[in-house]
Amino acid sequence: MTFSVATLQARVEAIFRRAGLNQVQAAALSRVIVAGERDACTSHGIYRIEGVLRTVKAGKVKADALPVLDRGEGAILRVDAGGGFSNPAFELGLPVLAERARELGLAALAVNDCTHFAALWPEVEAITEQGLAALVMCPSYATVAPAGGTRPLLGTNPLAFGWPRPGRDPYVFDFATSVAARGEIELHRRAGKPLPEGWAIDAEGEPTTDPVAALGGAMLTFGGHKGSAISTMVELLAGVMIGDLTSPEALEALGTTTLAPRHGELILALSPEMFAAGRPGDPFARAEVLLQAITGQGARLPSARRYAARAKSVAEGIALMAAEVELLDRLQEQGLDGVA
Amino acid sequence: MTFSVATLQARVEAIFRRAGLNQVQAAALSRVIVAGERDACTSHGIYRIEGVLRTVKAGKVKADALPVLDRGEGAILRVDAGGGFSNPAFELGLPVLAERARELGLAALAVNDCTHFAALWPEVEAITEQGLAALVMCPSYATVAPAGGTRPLLGTNPLAFGWPRPGRDPYVFDFATSVAARGEIELHRRAGKPLPEGWAIDAEGEPTTDPVAALGGAMLTFGGHKGSAISTMVELLAGVMIGDLTSPEALEALGTTTLAPRHGELILALSPEMFAAGRPGDPFARAEVLLQAITGQGARLPSARRYAARAKSVAEGIALMAAEVELLDRLQEQGLDGVA
Repeated sequence: MTFSVATLQARVEAIFRRAGLNQVQAAALSRVIVAGERDACTSHGIYRIEGVLRTVKAGKVKADALPVLDRGEGAILRVDAGGGFSNPAFELGLPVLAERARELGLAALAVNDCTHFAALWPEVEAITEQGLAALVMCPSYATVAPAGGTRPLLGTNPLAFGWPRPGRDPYVFDFATSVAARGEIELHRRAGKPLPEGWAIDAEGEPTTDPVAALGGAMLTFGGHKGSAISTMVELLAGVMIGDLTSPEALEALGTTTLAPRHGELILALSPEMFAAGRPGDPFARAEVLLQAITGQGARLPSARRYAARAKSVAEGIALMAAEVELLDRLQEQGLDGVA
Repeated sequence: MTFSVATLQARVEAIFRRAGLNQVQAAALSRVIVAGERDACTSHGIYRIEGVLRTVKAGKVKADALPVLDRGEGAILRVDAGGGFSNPAFELGLPVLAERARELGLAALAVNDCTHFAALWPEVEAITEQGLAALVMCPSYATVAPAGGTRPLLGTNPLAFGWPRPGRDPYVFDFATSVAARGEIELHRRAGKPLPEGWAIDAEGEPTTDPVAALGGAMLTFGGHKGSAISTMVELLAGVMIGDLTSPEALEALGTTTLAPRHGELILALSPEMFAAGRPGDPFARAEVLLQAITGQGARLPSARRYAARAKSVAEGIALMAAEVELLDRLQEQGLDGVA
């Protein structure tokens, strides 16, 4: 069964409204979830609806929160998500962030007291649509051991970046600083398949390829000590610095890794035009030379697969399987009673 | 033979003056080189003096350059290194960068038209001494293939970060976004030892463990496609965005990988106090909880080895081998005639 982006969004939004989310929460969440489904990024697509509802049902997120903007001063602004989801908080802050970055050359948006569950690329893309570069990061909950360590402490701590490409899809990356996502380990467990080497350690801190032992132990960072250092930076900047929870604090507050965690998020926006002013060359044209040299030698830019899926979805609609449509129907009908 | 930091610095500075560098270039360069030697970071220590002199002798850096500060506007300031080394340009910009970051919460220093050869951690540490966090990056010259590519395009593109720890050595990391430094491949070649898997590809783009083939091919990024994405970000932000050369442009301009490259550098400074204002908890105290949880499970913080070496050097002096002292004597006596 095939849906247009707008139709699917209305469906998902209606499910969230039925489950008690207010309009601003439901609209922002449905936009990012449908964007994930549209881009064939299914781990952030409609599969996530139930997770949202479970987190609401557990009382771990405020379904009727209204984010509050604090315009701050200097280059920093802040949105208090009020215990709601990060997405409407970001949407509220974006226009002021963009204005401030265009005025000062760079600016930061701190989102506080939010429940976070989406990918970061929708936010990165929204900033690039303003002609700005973006660097976005947030903690998670403690499931990853620092390099040389033995126990979960860091989160999967995603790092995302975007560069605007006028007339083209932006250059965007968005990845966990853990080797793999926790969901991938869970998928190996269900399939009874061993993990690749280097993904995880067991509860004694020893390397393991057993997904069950890994789920009871800790994941590892990508790129060894380098990824671990970057993940620690994410805790410091997007946890400690913005006065919000670090990953161990978020896990302690939530008490489980099965619901979406509450913490903060740090979003930097930079104006290439301001930075390049007075210097030779147009930054957007020069970036194309670099990026086309990458694709010109057969390498793929990050997000290329997502953009290809998006083009197909926009042209042909988003195809859902019968079981997925049934899930939407059930959640629409049953609301929070439809989830465990 | 043992030197105090001050004595060794005077020796190195005298060598640079003898070779024709002006006072501002010689002083800044000798500080970072002696800092490297002091921290047992020998690849950035006195071993580098000859490279500086070779680059001067080849006419690829302006030995008498005087950096010029442009206070800019908003959150961006700029120092034109005037074709000299990056180090005096950074030193000139630092006080204004710190002032601006304290005023606005975050600020950026773009260094342009500099020759770069030092590690980034001395700059990161200098920013943390101001009570500010730092994020620093720069391109290099094209020696690294993008993930999935076949030819050198990206540089080793270092990324460095620092967080101030009042009363302690700061949290600092500084690493190449390539798996290894080019010097390490050269060391394997000299020792006749194969490279570890995953370090490099040959001229045909095929994986190789042969250091000679690797030097004729390309290095790889750390962490696969994630490291490649970060390295590309460094090119975009610290090359294109600040209106300076990317790694392929720097290699084309220089024509060799044996001399220090000319390009720019991007330095961000962030004020934890401004970001955390109005939020619960002291960011510096909260950071200690996180960092001590890392060391508490037996993991080492980045730079720990450097700080241990530094403490020893400061207490006992910096020990040089006889051959190293002879090198200093020879360069002092012969100036630029002492290098090939």
